[in-house]
Amino acid sequence: MKHVKIKGSVAPLAGVLSGASRERLGKSGIGEMISLIERYEAISFGAGEPSPDLFPREEIAEAIANALGDADVWGYYHDDYGDEGLRDWIASRMKADGIAPEWVDAGNILLTNGGGEAMSLVTAAFVDPGSVVLVESPTYTESLLAFRAAGAFCLPVPSDGSGIIPEKLAGIVSSVPARFLYTIPNYQNPSGRTMPRERRVEVLEILCKAGIGLVEDDPYHYLGYDGDPPESFLALADDDVRVIHCSSFSKTIAPGLRVGWAVIPPYLSDIFGALRVSSGLGRPLAIQRGILRYLESIDFGDRISFLRTEYRKRRDEMALMCGSYLSPLGIRTNLPDGGFFVWGEVSPSYMNNFSSSRFARWAVEEERVGIIPGTAFYPSGGGENAFRMSYAKIRAGDIGDGVKRLARAFEKYRNLSE
Amino acid sequence: MKHVKIKGSVAPLAGVLSGASRERLGKSGIGEMISLIERYEAISFGAGEPSPDLFPREEIAEAIANALGDADVWGYYHDDYGDEGLRDWIASRMKADGIAPEWVDAGNILLTNGGGEAMSLVTAAFVDPGSVVLVESPTYTESLLAFRAAGAFCLPVPSDGSGIIPEKLAGIVSSVPARFLYTIPNYQNPSGRTMPRERRVEVLEILCKAGIGLVEDDPYHYLGYDGDPPESFLALADDDVRVIHCSSFSKTIAPGLRVGWAVIPPYLSDIFGALRVSSGLGRPLAIQRGILRYLESIDFGDRISFLRTEYRKRRDEMALMCGSYLSPLGIRTNLPDGGFFVWGEVSPSYMNNFSSSRFARWAVEEERVGIIPGTAFYPSGGGENAFRMSYAKIRAGDIGDGVKRLARAFEKYRNLSE
Repeated sequence: MKHVKIKGSVAPLAGVLSGASRERLGKSGIGEMISLIERYEAISFGAGEPSPDLFPREEIAEAIANALGDADVWGYYHDDYGDEGLRDWIASRMKADGIAPEWVDAGNILLTNGGGEAMSLVTAAFVDPGSVVLVESPTYTESLLAFRAAGAFCLPVPSDGSGIIPEKLAGIVSSVPARFLYTIPNYQNPSGRTMPRERRVEVLEILCKAGIGLVEDDPYHYLGYDGDPPESFLALADDDVRVIHCSSFSKTIAPGLRVGWAVIPPYLSDIFGALRVSSGLGRPLAIQRGILRYLESIDFGDRISFLRTEYRKRRDEMALMCGSYLSPLGIRTNLPDGGFFVWGEVSPSYMNNFSSSRFARWAVEEERVGIIPGTAFYPSGGGENAFRMSYAKIRAGDIGDGVKRLARAFEKYRNLSE
Repeated sequence: MKHVKIKGSVAPLAGVLSGASRERLGKSGIGEMISLIERYEAISFGAGEPSPDLFPREEIAEAIANALGDADVWGYYHDDYGDEGLRDWIASRMKADGIAPEWVDAGNILLTNGGGEAMSLVTAAFVDPGSVVLVESPTYTESLLAFRAAGAFCLPVPSDGSGIIPEKLAGIVSSVPARFLYTIPNYQNPSGRTMPRERRVEVLEILCKAGIGLVEDDPYHYLGYDGDPPESFLALADDDVRVIHCSSFSKTIAPGLRVGWAVIPPYLSDIFGALRVSSGLGRPLAIQRGILRYLESIDFGDRISFLRTEYRKRRDEMALMCGSYLSPLGIRTNLPDGGFFVWGEVSPSYMNNFSSSRFARWAVEEERVGIIPGTAFYPSGGGENAFRMSYAKIRAGDIGDGVKRLARAFEKYRNLSE
């Protein structure tokens, strides 16, 4: 007998999928749009990705080659949190920049496979089926999907141009037991909004009183184009250790290296260590150490200034073009203080049956320009009149063409719908 | 106000830990022993790790440096399953070696952060709180912990020197609805046992009839010292697609690179893709492509022959020493056909109140030699008379010293206990 001949179902394991994997099967609205944009070879405001021409390729390649000369990068590393040197660099830098309070040191930094994996570990640590997670509205789709895959109910907290509305938060936490509040306080994905300091303090005070934790997702921290962002939740909370702060090198160095981190308070250290073991031990040390060597070889402040200057040009060009071509059509856009995203909203007085998901498809198919419909970013309905545009990956000079295409697509779409 | 002054609990998030993280807090018996072994600077049969002197460091370092010259390793890769070239190499090689059936190609290979992450994804895909997972007895501790963290009940299937006993399996599956059977069929961790082909066929037939899947964890596949192992479950099942096969380059290349894989049948492809996105997108492409370049530059068969020759020497030396020093003391050891592990069992007629966990501590403290107590490998009791020894990381010439120390420790321990 060559092979076993008794055959079961054609999909024998389909019947035993976990709740998590069944939940997760719903495709990300972002992923679908990105595929469509690629298929049409459209000008893309879709992907929220850093610009490849700004990656320090040669310097990092040399640094990783150098790190590969260390004997200990080849075996199992003694600390599953990752390279101690890089963790020390991160802790020191965060303290020097006022992002982290005094208690944070290398021992509190857990290196992850990009910021996304930090969110995955946070989910594993705190979410059970039926848990409530409070989120901004709109918020980052992939985080919503990660929380939901573990069975969380994502409850949107009403937000305005300055982020979460404290009164609304206070009302919700007084009646709903939540595991934590998830926020992207700086240059938010997707809205580009930044929560002012006073609001952060109010939010934190409400959470303190209610005994609820906060997960601060801060990958765009260093990309403020008009100065530094307000004090982080992590720093504001100080030794009230209810904040898990997550960040990454994806935007400041390069996403393909897949290095991010989470700041883990001491009392949660063993738990995250155990979750790290369960998810496949440490991440590749050679890459972590290569990044460290690179960071030690440069002035990080200079690197940040360079990135800010480059992305600011794109932001400014985007704002100019939106003002010239979208604003006259009744499409309101914001001027983000940093990060990668502009949030467009169609005023109902100009068009009251606008559908962002239909329009996003239309814009790709008719004018070969890609945006992400606002509906992708709302946990339970909303965003039909809004869409996200990222200017980060397009050179300043090419932004105008994309915005003009978008304006043309909108005019055609509106004429057809009316 | 510098900081928020309202203080909540000293451990605000401790009250909202998930079931998974609370479950996972139980430390791995292996981890604790390894720490003890390191503290005493003992000769270690503890860690089941490959030998650093066998890592192809220069060749891989050059290959990764080379891969870093590719533009696409720096950004987000279009396929979250990982580098297509490496996945193609793996699929082709598995087919050429008879490990994978014809339907397996690059599209079915999901690259992971070592074999451990493959198990983490399998867990996420199929385990809900309360799910039953069938396991060998003994089996690999970290897999048990990963299944349990997701809320699985790990039900041990009685096993003998040839692995799972088919009659026992048939009895269990007739009364218990299980999500899958987890097995390490070749040179098992911890027992060193290999399941013969006939038994694999029987096991597969029982699972087919019962409609249950199988997770085949096969990291030691290429390390057979007396020839190739029997046909894999994946190959035996052929187009009855109930097997998820997992493996890694940790043993054949180097564990610090953190590259493993799982073979995912087509009907589960989207689900694992979604789980991969949730857990932080793809793993670092530069490493994956570096491994590919390395593999393309060598004769993999020669590499395997070299490893087999080196590890065989250690296995042979271990067997010789165990026969000379442990056997006379009533400690029975097996002669594994491959892999890294020897399983020691103390015959009750020599010592009937032997405690492997107490003895393992004693051996480190008294004679500075490290083993892992058998109790670490049983899902629900067992292993008190057994322990695991790995010879992989010790040069052949140094194995004797360790075994002699162990024999002395055992004699002292027995004298004291009697």
